[in-house]
Amino acid sequence: MRPTFPPTKFQSFNEISDPDLIKPRVKKLRSLMKDNKLDAWLAPHSDVHRSESLPKNQRRLAHITGFTGSAGSAIIETNNAALFVDGRYTMQAPLQTDTNIFDVLETPNEKPGTWAKNNLATKARLKTRIGFDPWLHTIAEIRTFNLQLENHGVLVATENLIEKIWDDRPPPPFKNIELLDIERAGIAAEDKILAIQNQLEDKNAKALVLNMPESICWLLNIRGRDVPNTPVVLAFAIVHRTKKPELFVDLKKINPEQNQLLSATVTLRKVEEFSATLKQLAKDKARIWVDPTTCPDAIFKLLSEKGGSVFEAPDPVMVAKAIKNPTEVAGMKQAHLLDGIAMANFLHWFDQNAPSGKLSEIEIASQLENFRASEPSLVDISFDTISGSGPNGAIVHYRVNEQSNRMLNSGELMLVDSGGQYLSGTTDITRTLFTGSASARQKQHFTLVLKGMIAISTLNFPKGTTGSQIDIMARHALWQKGLNYNHGTGHGVGAFLSVHETPAGIAPRYNVPLKAGMIISNEPGYYLEGAYGIRIENLVHVINSAQYEGFLAFETLTLAPIDTSLLDLGLLTSKEINWLNKYHSLVREKISPHLEHDQKSWLHRATTAI
Amino acid sequence: MRPTFPPTKFQSFNEISDPDLIKPRVKKLRSLMKDNKLDAWLAPHSDVHRSESLPKNQRRLAHITGFTGSAGSAIIETNNAALFVDGRYTMQAPLQTDTNIFDVLETPNEKPGTWAKNNLATKARLKTRIGFDPWLHTIAEIRTFNLQLENHGVLVATENLIEKIWDDRPPPPFKNIELLDIERAGIAAEDKILAIQNQLEDKNAKALVLNMPESICWLLNIRGRDVPNTPVVLAFAIVHRTKKPELFVDLKKINPEQNQLLSATVTLRKVEEFSATLKQLAKDKARIWVDPTTCPDAIFKLLSEKGGSVFEAPDPVMVAKAIKNPTEVAGMKQAHLLDGIAMANFLHWFDQNAPSGKLSEIEIASQLENFRASEPSLVDISFDTISGSGPNGAIVHYRVNEQSNRMLNSGELMLVDSGGQYLSGTTDITRTLFTGSASARQKQHFTLVLKGMIAISTLNFPKGTTGSQIDIMARHALWQKGLNYNHGTGHGVGAFLSVHETPAGIAPRYNVPLKAGMIISNEPGYYLEGAYGIRIENLVHVINSAQYEGFLAFETLTLAPIDTSLLDLGLLTSKEINWLNKYHSLVREKISPHLEHDQKSWLHRATTAI
Repeated sequence: MRPTFPPTKFQSFNEISDPDLIKPRVKKLRSLMKDNKLDAWLAPHSDVHRSESLPKNQRRLAHITGFTGSAGSAIIETNNAALFVDGRYTMQAPLQTDTNIFDVLETPNEKPGTWAKNNLATKARLKTRIGFDPWLHTIAEIRTFNLQLENHGVLVATENLIEKIWDDRPPPPFKNIELLDIERAGIAAEDKILAIQNQLEDKNAKALVLNMPESICWLLNIRGRDVPNTPVVLAFAIVHRTKKPELFVDLKKINPEQNQLLSATVTLRKVEEFSATLKQLAKDKARIWVDPTTCPDAIFKLLSEKGGSVFEAPDPVMVAKAIKNPTEVAGMKQAHLLDGIAMANFLHWFDQNAPSGKLSEIEIASQLENFRASEPSLVDISFDTISGSGPNGAIVHYRVNEQSNRMLNSGELMLVDSGGQYLSGTTDITRTLFTGSASARQKQHFTLVLKGMIAISTLNFPKGTTGSQIDIMARHALWQKGLNYNHGTGHGVGAFLSVHETPAGIAPRYNVPLKAGMIISNEPGYYLEGAYGIRIENLVHVINSAQYEGFLAFETLTLAPIDTSLLDLGLLTSKEINWLNKYHSLVREKISPHLEHDQKSWLHRATTAI
Repeated sequence: MRPTFPPTKFQSFNEISDPDLIKPRVKKLRSLMKDNKLDAWLAPHSDVHRSESLPKNQRRLAHITGFTGSAGSAIIETNNAALFVDGRYTMQAPLQTDTNIFDVLETPNEKPGTWAKNNLATKARLKTRIGFDPWLHTIAEIRTFNLQLENHGVLVATENLIEKIWDDRPPPPFKNIELLDIERAGIAAEDKILAIQNQLEDKNAKALVLNMPESICWLLNIRGRDVPNTPVVLAFAIVHRTKKPELFVDLKKINPEQNQLLSATVTLRKVEEFSATLKQLAKDKARIWVDPTTCPDAIFKLLSEKGGSVFEAPDPVMVAKAIKNPTEVAGMKQAHLLDGIAMANFLHWFDQNAPSGKLSEIEIASQLENFRASEPSLVDISFDTISGSGPNGAIVHYRVNEQSNRMLNSGELMLVDSGGQYLSGTTDITRTLFTGSASARQKQHFTLVLKGMIAISTLNFPKGTTGSQIDIMARHALWQKGLNYNHGTGHGVGAFLSVHETPAGIAPRYNVPLKAGMIISNEPGYYLEGAYGIRIENLVHVINSAQYEGFLAFETLTLAPIDTSLLDLGLLTSKEINWLNKYHSLVREKISPHLEHDQKSWLHRATTAI
């Protein structure tokens, strides 16, 4: 029986794709490649703004391959073609694409540049021409590709060939922008700009070029609704050392009143003027700051080909944005209160309905979205919900669709990772749900994961400590039983911005010191292939230690009960039990006043001290 | 009363230096600088082989500044001069040098290149000439210096000016070499060489140039007695991809029988032929492998100026050497048995004599050396003993001399960090000793340090884990009380080689995965300035976990009791107490059969279960 589920506004579970459309499109592309004397064409899943969720008009990879996943790339050669996807999409991709045309290959074992090298090796070295759109690849990506290619071909930047064969291409997103006043932003745009201009002075750079909407929106205290999940306006900006920043944007998204307010801080420019401005900027050997990990290769070329010297360093706005100001922290706390209310209502609903055995992964995700959406200040969900029952929970980035949708049986664990974009802030929470009677093994694994989560929550650490250093604290209890999980422990989270933010986080790759004001996730897990996945995630806020001079600690922002029926109490120390009881008591105190009678009673039970 | 102490063979506690000698020497040097049109001269504490303990003829920094510490550098400018030392030498250096000539500056806050930039800034940029001996600085050091200099001068490689003014310069060390047979080395030199040649093949390099005696001695299964503390022969080597390696060495150190045996594996060459051979090697654009962190700038210049392409990567011999083979592990265990016997006799002597209040730091270090030296296979100590009573223990790398020597009072902690070079292997151990009645604070700090040491000792970790990841486990107990220590948790240790070895270790800078066979130290500490220092150090051996597939663990090699009278038992978990009791029971079982009656009784008491 195909399950039914309530309608949802922000996510769909039906990824429509017709493999039969692929063959004629690839044929057209190959014909265009021939016209352009190209032996291959690169098709990444990306836009010029590195959007995590692509607007419809930017889904070029889906257009040419049929594959609709959230990451991947393709190389179309004259005779061969390969679609590169990571482990979470190795099932989905072959169903969506035409496998007579595309070999589906799994990254990171298969590397696009290496594949190109091997498949193009028949032709003379350096004579093979690989076409690409330089706006869709970062400087760093092009360097990596070239390293992998080892001179078995040259990359040739051209106009985008897929756009030329895309007849029914949707229009770009068009939504009005939103201005944040000082009560919401905490710091005036003028002051943020001045701090960046001081850094330009320090580095002897004339200007900073920004293509990441998160950076631009944070710097200028604006937001937008152009893309799913992240409340940004798509735009470029140039921050000049000695004059007002220029914002390049579709000016029709700005009403006259906004235009007047914004113009006090920035010079508004049409987006069409961006390239010409870059060329002009780079004259006279000017030194221009870009972040090579996010800046498109096209910008690098425009700057350097006109004699500018490109200064490569991490985007200073990203670095500043990672440290939330007190107003942003207060907003994030308000968002977590609203999210906690939605979670309590959802978890109560789950406990009422799960024993029936009639809930599906989609119904669970849909109900959760609707509990969130009952809050008027919810603008969007912060990412598509991961809703994995039983063995699907063991697929770390599982995304349910109508084909994979599974009913939750008694005795099965259910992993739900979700979040909301409220006007006040962004949330991201994972809870592992359960119905029935848990096995000793399920309890052991759940408790070991919780021990890791508590170890981070209760950690004191000296200033200067990086996220890479503390990652092991979340793994130690698992490691001592020979277990581990194959993902980072935490990522940075924006304040009413992207739910995944650099440069702060908890994993070996995060090498910047943690600082008071940063907000990151704390989400250890354990995945037993073919059986279940467990993850417990709270967001935490880095604070100065109240006890110890020179030390930092974490304040937990997320407010939702953790299922105590899944605990093996014998594995917990008294300190860990104390932490859990104090946490549950805080959840009850904060959330309880906002619940109806039944939900309130449920929350009291769910947060009873153990 | 000046204390007396027994004579020692391997270390002296009297660093003689006459500041009055410095003025005429610097005058001579400045005159030579003028002849060479140099505005400054760089004088590092180093030799071409990066020896940790310099032979007497290599102590150029001591000759020109009077400073005899184990690390530092000087810049002598026409009018100014600076002596750069780290925190442990800021007291000693001003007493040894002429402070009218040298400003003593503390690294790493003061950077030589930055000082040069600021002090040479009066002259026109790029016209200031800074002379240096390119054999005494690594490729990486010269790059760092140039970065700091920011073009306020140019480095000019010349012959060594200090050697030219050094009238009574001692001769180079001269000791016969020692060949290790397969029973001691475990792997034949031929096989080690073949493995390196395979890597040369992989990297498409023609040859590998080695200047580190540890690498050369390990690769060729030879040892020597040229320098204090590390049993190596000073030499260079070139490992060729397609022919026998060349060893450049003072051939008089090799007797005819050794010459014949060695010649089966290597081509023996006079050390004077090294430079000419490098030039020859680099012809025809050959690609030559060097490690920029250890290779002298002079070698880089000889290779690259003649058209060779320098391939920079970590020394592959260092990497191979870090993983001890079963024979080496067995040797290290034997060395730790011998060292454990010496330590038991020493600790017994300490317990008998410390209550008198008449022991000095030097007497304690001397007695320990003599207990070690009673073992005939002891070749040397592995480094000068750190023997710090009370507040001197808080100086992390404290080195006692006759001026600083202090009597140990009742109630004071005593930090003793020492080690031996036995024919079978190398040891490094720290114990914190005590006499009298310990305060609650002393016990708390000692116990927190021990908790960190046990956390490393008992850790399971998946293959692929780096030393940087696990460092925090040794700090966690201290961090939770707002305490920390300002050094790494562990370093690699050679097998009858250097006591400090890269690339394995436990600290944020160690980014290579730990592998079965590596031997590293485990030495957390805590230092209360002006009061005491605590450190507890065992060596540990990385082994495959007996319990968990894909996991690694540590086996402890060091065999010496830890003072249980310093424990606050309330701070230890039952697992930690179990570990300590099992460890002490192992120490008793292994060491007890080798002790006299009184010492045996003492060891039984010292290792009684708590």
